[in-house]
Amino acid sequence: MNKNKITPRAYLFPMPVTLIGANMNGKPSFETLAYAGVVEAQPPLISIASWESHYTNIGIKENKTFSVNTPSEDLAEKIDYCGIVSGKEIDKSKIFDVFYGDLKTAPMVSQSPLNLECEVIKTIKIKELVEVEEGHEVFIGKVVNAYADEKYLTEGIPDIAKLKTYTYSQNNYWKVGEKLAPAFEIGKKYKK
Amino acid sequence: MNKNKITPRAYLFPMPVTLIGANMNGKPSFETLAYAGVVEAQPPLISIASWESHYTNIGIKENKTFSVNTPSEDLAEKIDYCGIVSGKEIDKSKIFDVFYGDLKTAPMVSQSPLNLECEVIKTIKIKELVEVEEGHEVFIGKVVNAYADEKYLTEGIPDIAKLKTYTYSQNNYWKVGEKLAPAFEIGKKYKK
Repeated sequence: MNKNKITPRAYLFPMPVTLIGANMNGKPSFETLAYAGVVEAQPPLISIASWESHYTNIGIKENKTFSVNTPSEDLAEKIDYCGIVSGKEIDKSKIFDVFYGDLKTAPMVSQSPLNLECEVIKTIKIKELVEVEEGHEVFIGKVVNAYADEKYLTEGIPDIAKLKTYTYSQNNYWKVGEKLAPAFEIGKKYKK
Repeated sequence: MNKNKITPRAYLFPMPVTLIGANMNGKPSFETLAYAGVVEAQPPLISIASWESHYTNIGIKENKTFSVNTPSEDLAEKIDYCGIVSGKEIDKSKIFDVFYGDLKTAPMVSQSPLNLECEVIKTIKIKELVEVEEGHEVFIGKVVNAYADEKYLTEGIPDIAKLKTYTYSQNNYWKVGEKLAPAFEIGKKYKK
């Protein structure tokens, strides 16, 4: 084994890219996050981690709602922009066409191929877990509605081969590549 | 807008694939999970969600440790196998070459390009948040050590272009594709 210790960081591959929507003083704002993960299938729960002093957090905590908008390659420039500038300085309400669903306060991006409308059911402050002056807030959201255009679906399910979404790693975005293998299937070939 | 409501599920793109290691009665066992996300950068924290009755959970709770092993294409068959069969029925201790780090109880896979040795700092039971009879347990782990072979690194950092890792979506694994654009950079082109 040629393994060496490297600086411990939260290396996870591949990471999602999410455009998080929240309402700030009644106006939509958006933040780009890679710190997101699924935590439950039924009911569908997604956790997102957003730096506590970020503008978006105010709206998420006030309304107890947020949206998860799936990026597509053609939106990459605008989505990256939402990760560079703060809603505290820049009005992001006009960047995208926005629609609302049943929760009324989770702004969703029409141009995004897939939108999840989420209700916050739990908030965890990282600074209450570890000794840091400032940290992320983890919001666990229940997906109450999902919206997609038919052209991104296969048998009613969003199809990664049609979404043209991408992953984030080390200051770059990377496309999703070709199919590698069927899950819960190739493992059957393995004989111990 | 041609958006329609689709069945709400926890759709996140792309999802990571992780091979989670834990010690069960002093022996290593492994479980494949896509329900993982980063929740903090400093200290590095990763959350994983594992179904509460899974074998691995016993070891994670007993030792308060687990490992996150990054998959590579050449391990896909064995890693998928670990997601198909339960450690309750099958002894998974001989599938991989295993090593241990400072925590002593988080088994790591030598063949995996990158290993994270994690200490559990928080456990959240989903069934305490929502009304379900059984659900996932979310373990937030602090990455106390990371291990990698030099050949997977660029300037000391694991390089997604060298890892040959993959993503999970809808019962299939997908390769990571080519570079799309630099993050925190392409957004600068956007003029509101």
